Amino acid sequence: MASDLRRKEQLPDLTRRIVETYREAGSINHLGHCPLPNYDAVVGIIEDLKEILFPGFRRREGLHMGNVLYHVGDLIDGLHDKLTTQIARALRHDAGRVSIDDGETDFEALGQAKAIEFLEHIPELRHALALDVQAAYDGDPAVRGLDEIIFCYPGLEAITVYRLAHVLYGMDVPLIPRMMTEWAHSKTGIDIHPGATIGSHFFIDHGTGVVIGQTCEIGDRVKLYQGVTLGALSFATDGDGNLVRGTKRHPTIEDRVVIYANATVLGGATVVGHDSVIGSSVWLTKSVEPRSTVVLEKPKLRIRAEMEEPQANYSI
Amino acid sequence: MASDLRRKEQLPDLTRRIVETYREAGSINHLGHCPLPNYDAVVGIIEDLKEILFPGFRRREGLHMGNVLYHVGDLIDGLHDKLTTQIARALRHDAGRVSIDDGETDFEALGQAKAIEFLEHIPELRHALALDVQAAYDGDPAVRGLDEIIFCYPGLEAITVYRLAHVLYGMDVPLIPRMMTEWAHSKTGIDIHPGATIGSHFFIDHGTGVVIGQTCEIGDRVKLYQGVTLGALSFATDGDGNLVRGTKRHPTIEDRVVIYANATVLGGATVVGHDSVIGSSVWLTKSVEPRSTVVLEKPKLRIRAEMEEPQANYSI
Amino acid sequence: MASDLRRKEQLPDLTRRIVETYREAGSINHLGHCPLPNYDAVVGIIEDLKEILFPGFRRREGLHMGNVLYHVGDLIDGLHDKLTTQIARALRHDAGRVSIDDGETDFEALGQAKAIEFLEHIPELRHALALDVQAAYDGDPAVRGLDEIIFCYPGLEAITVYRLAHVLYGMDVPLIPRMMTEWAHSKTGIDIHPGATIGSHFFIDHGTGVVIGQTCEIGDRVKLYQGVTLGALSFATDGDGNLVRGTKRHPTIEDRVVIYANATVLGGATVVGHDSVIGSSVWLTKSVEPRSTVVLEKPKLRIRAEMEEPQANYSI
Repeated sequence: MASDLRRKEQLPDLTRRIVETYREAGSINHLGHCPLPNYDAVVGIIEDLKEILFPGFRRREGLHMGNVLYHVGDLIDGLHDKLTTQIARALRHDAGRVSIDDGETDFEALGQAKAIEFLEHIPELRHALALDVQAAYDGDPAVRGLDEIIFCYPGLEAITVYRLAHVLYGMDVPLIPRMMTEWAHSKTGIDIHPGATIGSHFFIDHGTGVVIGQTCEIGDRVKLYQGVTLGALSFATDGDGNLVRGTKRHPTIEDRVVIYANATVLGGATVVGHDSVIGSSVWLTKSVEPRSTVVLEKPKLRIRAEMEEPQANYSI
Repeated sequence: MASDLRRKEQLPDLTRRIVETYREAGSINHLGHCPLPNYDAVVGIIEDLKEILFPGFRRREGLHMGNVLYHVGDLIDGLHDKLTTQIARALRHDAGRVSIDDGETDFEALGQAKAIEFLEHIPELRHALALDVQAAYDGDPAVRGLDEIIFCYPGLEAITVYRLAHVLYGMDVPLIPRMMTEWAHSKTGIDIHPGATIGSHFFIDHGTGVVIGQTCEIGDRVKLYQGVTLGALSFATDGDGNLVRGTKRHPTIEDRVVIYANATVLGGATVVGHDSVIGSSVWLTKSVEPRSTVVLEKPKLRIRAEMEEPQANYSI
Repeated sequence: MASDLRRKEQLPDLTRRIVETYREAGSINHLGHCPLPNYDAVVGIIEDLKEILFPGFRRREGLHMGNVLYHVGDLIDGLHDKLTTQIARALRHDAGRVSIDDGETDFEALGQAKAIEFLEHIPELRHALALDVQAAYDGDPAVRGLDEIIFCYPGLEAITVYRLAHVLYGMDVPLIPRMMTEWAHSKTGIDIHPGATIGSHFFIDHGTGVVIGQTCEIGDRVKLYQGVTLGALSFATDGDGNLVRGTKRHPTIEDRVVIYANATVLGGATVVGHDSVIGSSVWLTKSVEPRSTVVLEKPKLRIRAEMEEPQANYSI
């Protein structure tokens, strides 16, 4: 009634065969190079930043104006070091991806400069996030106070991480912005590419299934509901059939637009004019004028009432 | 090849500017007040409750009728203390939100009374959840046994947390019920507002993207699939343009209704009569009689067969 | 201003009443039997396997060809023991579910044999996953390199866990494969049943809300977007009204098919022919020929431009 230790003798041979695949299928392992950014360290950086952005809500209790300076100073000091290390790793790795490192670039110094430049954005990010919180309060009749939004709203979580990642993306920091937004995607079901441009007072309610593509441009006071896709209509390919990367593929959403649940808006040339309302489940691939209301034609439904057998043989 | 410590000298000034924003954008920090409920403590409370509701499935192994009394007694004792603290914090904070605390309300005693009242619901919750587990078994041909449902089914996870949160919501405990259901939303993609009313034998399959609004009323033996929205059709505003909060905005779903994937049912006046079936992707904003079957008209599809070029220039 | 310890005196009686429900509602507790598989142990096994499949990306840094053999050997040795224990538990529990354990089956030895058989699949899984990573790179214009896919892409996470779970499922290991894929579902919003059959070069982009049913058959180089359901159209019931389990209920998707966001393909007899394209939000319940393009008729939209009042009284 036990496992047989002699059967473990085949494990060293299996280990050798696995390691052999690190040579054959070398594209999915990372050996013998400088270290990659560390996923857990990047998540730790986000958590530290949230402590500064929304102090008193999560880890540290008992903060007041008399001690918060020390608390923030300590977090900023640690973030400087962590960001310097992780950004330097991302830069060194990315440089190695496109050319051989000549050994002369000082990635640590570059990482530090970008870390400090990033941290300098925190005051303005605080102001931007206060407007996002207010937009959620103004947009949802089910909420009782601002605290509930900061504690509970997945939309705010996703927007917070997006706004942080977007700053790093704009500073040409590789890998880390996407690691950040995909961590938020995993927690919230909301997938915002760090390359998207998003204005003030942005509110996403419920949010599961929302996708906002890399080249979206979104104005101020826009409101999205769960399942909204702002996506690409077609991918250009070059003469060899490879994807062309970096062109504008995703729509432009102007100020004060509301897009209801599960609507899909596609294409880099599609502009939804300001003050428009896009109804639930609409599928839109062309531009609409400002102040438009776009809803589905009342869907043709087949309704059979008073059936003999209540359990219809219809399912998914 | 290293970061420059002298560049860190600008961090104290940055820290001061960040702390300054705590005065200017004060709506999104919590300083100098009594502590808020603690998110990690609330999650710990849910995990402890699940140990009692489904003993032997998760943390503690080797339970039997001879030792389970001690195990449950220990958990209940700890839960009493944790719930008392967190509920007292939520009550004190909520009272401060609407008026100045006069220092005379004994929030600890109130918290304790509500903690005990809540714990008294556990035996009936056990019975309700046993019916939910059975409904999942009866509704899914892919499942092999009840254990698989308790271990794996995100629908059961979301319903369990909802049933706990709904009891606290009914006792007018602020903040904590929403913290609980949003934690479940994050884990499962299923967003059930704790204010919704849901009958027995409730089953959600797959579940990602499901949204059940605050004022929904759902009968017994209802079954939902992934992506179903039970939402609001319009928000009332008062004379000043502010949202009116608390009115019935979400539909009523009567007994034995099945709603298939990605269907959307909207509006506080919408009633789906008992024994009805709402088909996949249906979009419904008016009431239907009992025993109705509502499906999409066969959608008009454009189908081009045998294309010259298999890679269509069509994408999202 | 404090909780009253005497009120805790009612807790022992509550504890007794809760334990009483373990007799009455006994289907949702696990007492007095051999232990079930441990959820956290199963998650730990997945994390260890990912260290071997994608070395250098997550936990352990500084790996090179000179030390990776020891690292992998150590992980394999530990995985042997962990898998043996967990598989033995699943087998013993499943045997007890269908008959009384006669005490003669050596579940530990069976567990060990299956653990080793499973681990022997790792080299081929490495090759399969390298093709999946390449498919993601070839399919997404927003990605910069293979590293970004391994670090960030929820689709790869879900496919990796599916491929591991599918091997165990094929070896008739109960419970554990579903625990694995539901863990991935929780992290990614992508729900792939371990029983599905999926070919090479599989790519899921964004992914939230994807459901792939138990009896799906998917060919090579298939690409899915967020919200795609490959589901069942109807459930057969036997003479007593109980569900018939195990029949082919989900569609067949042939090689090089692309299915865009939120499309729904239903039914065990539905075959999507090779090189077909299924457009966004299409709802399909019948087979289509190879090289078909299926898109929605341009939806009839009601568009009202230049409204007087920009805030339409329309919402969800």
